[in-house]
Amino acid sequence: MAKKIGSQTLLLTSSPSIIGYAAVGAKKEKEGPLGGYFDFTSEDSSFGEKTWEKSETFMQKKVVELALEKCGVSDNEIDFLFAGDLLNQCISSAYASRERKIPFFGLYGACSTMSESLCLASMFVDAKLANRCLAVTSSHFCSAERQFRFPLEYGGQRTPTSQWTVTGAGACVVAPKAQAPYLRAVTVGTVEDLGITDINNMGAAMAPAAARTLCQYFQDTATRPEDYDLILTGDLGFVGSRLLERLMQSEGYPMANLHNDCGLMIFDRLKQDVHAGGSGCGCAASVLCSFILPQIACQRLKDVLFLATGALMSPTSTQQGESIPGIAHLLHISAFPHTKEEQA
Amino acid sequence: MAKKIGSQTLLLTSSPSIIGYAAVGAKKEKEGPLGGYFDFTSEDSSFGEKTWEKSETFMQKKVVELALEKCGVSDNEIDFLFAGDLLNQCISSAYASRERKIPFFGLYGACSTMSESLCLASMFVDAKLANRCLAVTSSHFCSAERQFRFPLEYGGQRTPTSQWTVTGAGACVVAPKAQAPYLRAVTVGTVEDLGITDINNMGAAMAPAAARTLCQYFQDTATRPEDYDLILTGDLGFVGSRLLERLMQSEGYPMANLHNDCGLMIFDRLKQDVHAGGSGCGCAASVLCSFILPQIACQRLKDVLFLATGALMSPTSTQQGESIPGIAHLLHISAFPHTKEEQA
Repeated sequence: MAKKIGSQTLLLTSSPSIIGYAAVGAKKEKEGPLGGYFDFTSEDSSFGEKTWEKSETFMQKKVVELALEKCGVSDNEIDFLFAGDLLNQCISSAYASRERKIPFFGLYGACSTMSESLCLASMFVDAKLANRCLAVTSSHFCSAERQFRFPLEYGGQRTPTSQWTVTGAGACVVAPKAQAPYLRAVTVGTVEDLGITDINNMGAAMAPAAARTLCQYFQDTATRPEDYDLILTGDLGFVGSRLLERLMQSEGYPMANLHNDCGLMIFDRLKQDVHAGGSGCGCAASVLCSFILPQIACQRLKDVLFLATGALMSPTSTQQGESIPGIAHLLHISAFPHTKEEQA
Repeated sequence: MAKKIGSQTLLLTSSPSIIGYAAVGAKKEKEGPLGGYFDFTSEDSSFGEKTWEKSETFMQKKVVELALEKCGVSDNEIDFLFAGDLLNQCISSAYASRERKIPFFGLYGACSTMSESLCLASMFVDAKLANRCLAVTSSHFCSAERQFRFPLEYGGQRTPTSQWTVTGAGACVVAPKAQAPYLRAVTVGTVEDLGITDINNMGAAMAPAAARTLCQYFQDTATRPEDYDLILTGDLGFVGSRLLERLMQSEGYPMANLHNDCGLMIFDRLKQDVHAGGSGCGCAASVLCSFILPQIACQRLKDVLFLATGALMSPTSTQQGESIPGIAHLLHISAFPHTKEEQA
């Protein structure tokens, strides 16, 4: 039963488990430092499909199939599917889900979607609204690039602060307490906007939202960064990560030595020419589901704060001169369930 | 505490209440048959803003302000805000929410968003994940038209099956059992795709999803259409409504005399030149919050099945020859809470 502590955090006292998870990527992700940890990678970005949007849909279908397979759960044992992506009208999620007859909640949280879907899934299971839930998201470099920036054929030059959208997907099956990783707490973020308008510097736009959610969580739980092995943001990249660390330092929570960012882990920034790092819903999703969750499962990592961050603008809002609102949802994922005292 | 019955329905045994609600519209909505029931209408569609997207954002801000005001609840008494809209990256919801420091779940359910947000809000309150939640959505004719169809200035001719996007917004504040209207059950829909590809006939694309969810609900609850005063779909319009009624008839649940559709109620189809009727997230939202909820509150309507329907395609998926997946989430909204026997 979820227990509210402080003003914005819920302890998931039943400690739901992530019983199955999978990550899918393409060639560039395979060539990155985490390539070997993916469950499935493709030799190119098309995944054998005719359009980039269909390729992304394929990834979502594949990653759900793998996550279910890995925990031996079938479609009809899943109560709810929470899914979203970056594409207009979230088509990858809708088209990937039409063959599965699972009650479906479509989400839009931009690159925060892995956190958003996992928050909802874990809250549903903890509150016994569901027995098993799926949390899924994806992004695709080519579908995102042409939708948010330029046609690929145009070959536009990228600024040093720009990030590279990950072609990848991740899926988690959340169920009642069974084995590590356990989901112990969530802090659902608020929409933060500090007036950043540079669309090529999304890390800077999202860092304040991450800082806001992290400070709130530390305050609510009366814990500090050093109580965790790793504080893992989604896709702040190089610029946003340095900003977040400075923001947290100024708030009295220095954490530079405990912090990492999925956007900095998935690619070799210099060799793979991705400028400020990886981004996209699929970045946090695939790093979490390929590399992080197995380490929590085997107790190499004991307590991780995972917070994927999203930038909630659109090309239209940018053209209209609007600044970029950000959001970050946090989950405490642990190798151990809550103790009896914590549950009380 | 939510209780699962059948395979897809949850009884909300604590009977959460909609303690506050409001509807906002523009000139055409004001001139329609329900115009007098809106809490706020504008003399034009701009709401004093410089762009249609900002006008839509204004509506969402206004409708939340009114709903909170009407039940005397302040921002910091709301635990979660569930919001979504039709625009790419759901910008009206994000920009409308950035000034409110409420934990935010962004949704994309196309025109099903009022049902989707209300399902989540009522489930959260019933399961004690929250004490009070906001469910909000909007649509705007001008922002939708240029995004999904043609620039307004182009003056494209509309087909007889096409519908007119409502410029409107609706918001509900959901809280523990207090007064009518009560939320008694939810059936969360699955993504259904029967291969309809005509983008000017969205009613036909969504009708199968509505039929699927309705049949599931009747099966799960062992009730029949005649157990309700009104079965209210979101925006099937004239064509989709007739289709739904025929589908339900063939499934053994004739309901033509109990069924109405928000898209057929909000405008005078013939006088207001809206062809097959109204549509958009704001259609179901504003009809529910202006006209329906007050009638349940005063017991003129006792048991209503409300199901907003969404078409989950995008212009890109349509251009790529994809068919249109639909979804429909159902809520049983009642003038009376569950009896003690039903709770057990």
